[in-house]
Amino acid sequence: MTIQTVKGTRDFFPEDMAFQTWLKGLIRDSSEKYGYQEYDGPFLETVDLYAAKSGEELVKEQSFVFPDRSGDLLTLRPELTPSLARMVASLGRSLVRPVRWWSFGPFWRYEKPQKGRTREFFQWNLDMLGIDTPQADAEVAAVAVSFLQKAGLSPEQVKIYINNRRLVDQQLQGLDINAENRPSVFRLIDRRDKLSFSEWKNYALSEGLSEGQLSGVQEILQDRTSWEQCEELVLFFDAARDLGVSDYLEYDPSIIRGLDYYTGTVFEARDLSGDYRAILGGGRYDNLVADVGGEPISGVGFAMGDVVIGIFLKELGLVPDLLPNPAQLLVTTFNDELMGKSLALCQSLRSAGLRVEWYPLSSRMSKQLKYANRQGIPLVVIMGPDEAESGSVTLKDMRSGDQSICKLKELPSAAFKMLE
Amino acid sequence: MTIQTVKGTRDFFPEDMAFQTWLKGLIRDSSEKYGYQEYDGPFLETVDLYAAKSGEELVKEQSFVFPDRSGDLLTLRPELTPSLARMVASLGRSLVRPVRWWSFGPFWRYEKPQKGRTREFFQWNLDMLGIDTPQADAEVAAVAVSFLQKAGLSPEQVKIYINNRRLVDQQLQGLDINAENRPSVFRLIDRRDKLSFSEWKNYALSEGLSEGQLSGVQEILQDRTSWEQCEELVLFFDAARDLGVSDYLEYDPSIIRGLDYYTGTVFEARDLSGDYRAILGGGRYDNLVADVGGEPISGVGFAMGDVVIGIFLKELGLVPDLLPNPAQLLVTTFNDELMGKSLALCQSLRSAGLRVEWYPLSSRMSKQLKYANRQGIPLVVIMGPDEAESGSVTLKDMRSGDQSICKLKELPSAAFKMLE
Repeated sequence: MTIQTVKGTRDFFPEDMAFQTWLKGLIRDSSEKYGYQEYDGPFLETVDLYAAKSGEELVKEQSFVFPDRSGDLLTLRPELTPSLARMVASLGRSLVRPVRWWSFGPFWRYEKPQKGRTREFFQWNLDMLGIDTPQADAEVAAVAVSFLQKAGLSPEQVKIYINNRRLVDQQLQGLDINAENRPSVFRLIDRRDKLSFSEWKNYALSEGLSEGQLSGVQEILQDRTSWEQCEELVLFFDAARDLGVSDYLEYDPSIIRGLDYYTGTVFEARDLSGDYRAILGGGRYDNLVADVGGEPISGVGFAMGDVVIGIFLKELGLVPDLLPNPAQLLVTTFNDELMGKSLALCQSLRSAGLRVEWYPLSSRMSKQLKYANRQGIPLVVIMGPDEAESGSVTLKDMRSGDQSICKLKELPSAAFKMLE
Repeated sequence: MTIQTVKGTRDFFPEDMAFQTWLKGLIRDSSEKYGYQEYDGPFLETVDLYAAKSGEELVKEQSFVFPDRSGDLLTLRPELTPSLARMVASLGRSLVRPVRWWSFGPFWRYEKPQKGRTREFFQWNLDMLGIDTPQADAEVAAVAVSFLQKAGLSPEQVKIYINNRRLVDQQLQGLDINAENRPSVFRLIDRRDKLSFSEWKNYALSEGLSEGQLSGVQEILQDRTSWEQCEELVLFFDAARDLGVSDYLEYDPSIIRGLDYYTGTVFEARDLSGDYRAILGGGRYDNLVADVGGEPISGVGFAMGDVVIGIFLKELGLVPDLLPNPAQLLVTTFNDELMGKSLALCQSLRSAGLRVEWYPLSSRMSKQLKYANRQGIPLVVIMGPDEAESGSVTLKDMRSGDQSICKLKELPSAAFKMLE
């Protein structure tokens, strides 16, 4: 009768944590390559922060909301962008533009746990604020491409699909769908892939679209060239070419993104097999900072959860062998009398710059060597009574099986040489 | 009217985050030097997990507890050790001993925010499980010392004070304080520093101690040599000497630690000025894994919050200058016509291995250079129309003011040379 974890949360055993650390390393490298600075918000926020602008569904149905001991309603953050907006707003006039910030931290959504979806997850967020140009949009997409490349993903495996909400607005205006109905038509377009055609058609008619408007929407969704009519997208794809990332980018009129606050470019990375959920998504937002009480400032950014990309990379075999044990060397304990000398030997090797694990019991030597093997520790040091007497040890390379007697003062350099 | 953060939570602007990353780097180095493996538990746990063994005060008064949408009581974890115990218990027979694990993650306690205490904080946890020896206790304390040393703290600034609950048990037995009253006397000892003597005495008498027992407890607290009567502590200090960390360790009969689950060695790091709360604390626990449903397994570990050590290191001036902007080079934009060439230049420098920020507007060059200065970016590249024509750029070192014309294909190596 062990106590269970909360549904949708995960334990990170060392092998899982090694993956998280590797993933965050790729994320850091990609973000810093473009000069983005790491930041983070609090994990607990007031519910008011999200009421301002996140999609209603996200706050009312998918967030953990609870009163604290004084009765205030708190939220385990379901996304980072509103916190970013609040932080930027708080800087006021001391803000230096452009703001280029990235983050990797925990988020919570109260959703049905399923493949690619947990209730507690990590998310990479990257945003540029204060610059409202298609080139800024392209740079942000290029950082995402940089990550995909570092992860070993080719444009034949994953693409970032691009659209622009202002273009869609114009297209819908051309169908006489007026401004107040557009959010529901955005949702309609967003769900095209998730419903059968007849379900989707019924949904469209129930939302008040005429048959003519419905076929107009279908035409929009089938025209892969309409981006050429949108100057923002033309400049976006020009900049993407200058940044050398065109291979990974493609216009897709069906990309809308769920969140209400996007106003311009929107994008979403998907695997070409179609087997997975979106890998990352984002876009340009204009009013978010003003909505939380600051001066109006435009921004563009994206978020990537750790769960879908993790499954995807693992299933494609793109995750390298990650050794959870950081030790380069195991110092064994020959017998209880030599325990103190083993401890002192560990410390002198650590002082020489090595990462050293100590075997803390005088178990059979075969058991200690087996432990080194199972832990993937490459080198083992054995010091028996005669060796201790003569100031030497046996240094064994567990990978080759080679071993040699080594004077104590030569041990660090011999170990470094074997590790090369 | 900006939206506020939740009381006791923190925003991490890039300069704050640079400190967190530096701190975690020291923690990782210290932990990995001894072969400890990184792991983490979920941040949300069931309240049952803590009911098993954490101090009552911690769960009932100091934790965020709330029902999820299905009515189950969840807790934002106030500490990691119960999650560790649950994880280890879940491994069952596949567990390889010793388990040496460390972690750095968020925790929450509903306490009055004050200096050194926030409601949302980070904590380093490090534990060794499966080995019940004083040498194991000493190794864990040595990892803590290793961190203090890496942070630049001397034994004149901070010490780790050691005690042993089994020794205290014997001492209290010698005063005819029986087993069921010892937890309240533990609390009494733990609070000696927090109350005036008369308050403390009244508290002691209200807890049922006789005058004789009270003066016996006072004698215990004044005797700095009683550790010599405790074999575990003798062996502990022997091993600490072998590990070269004796300077930082000292027996202190008043150290108890608040949590109920400690059974042997306990310790606490404090600054010698006495101006700060405990920097880290821990000890040996024997029954924790059994309490959450596993086989009995002994462990020893400690935790260190990020807040007290952060204030302490900052006030001592021990935090190095940390540059939040990772860019090595700013590529400027001379005019709108050259924007595409600037973008392409950025990308070729990134491909050469440099971290490059792009100035995304064709602002006055003096403004772009000022931006590089404020951000602490050491190098700037300027490409005007003539230079673009001739395939060259101006490379400027912002630190020295030196600048030179450079052929495009020689630019990466020239930049790397300046950065050396």
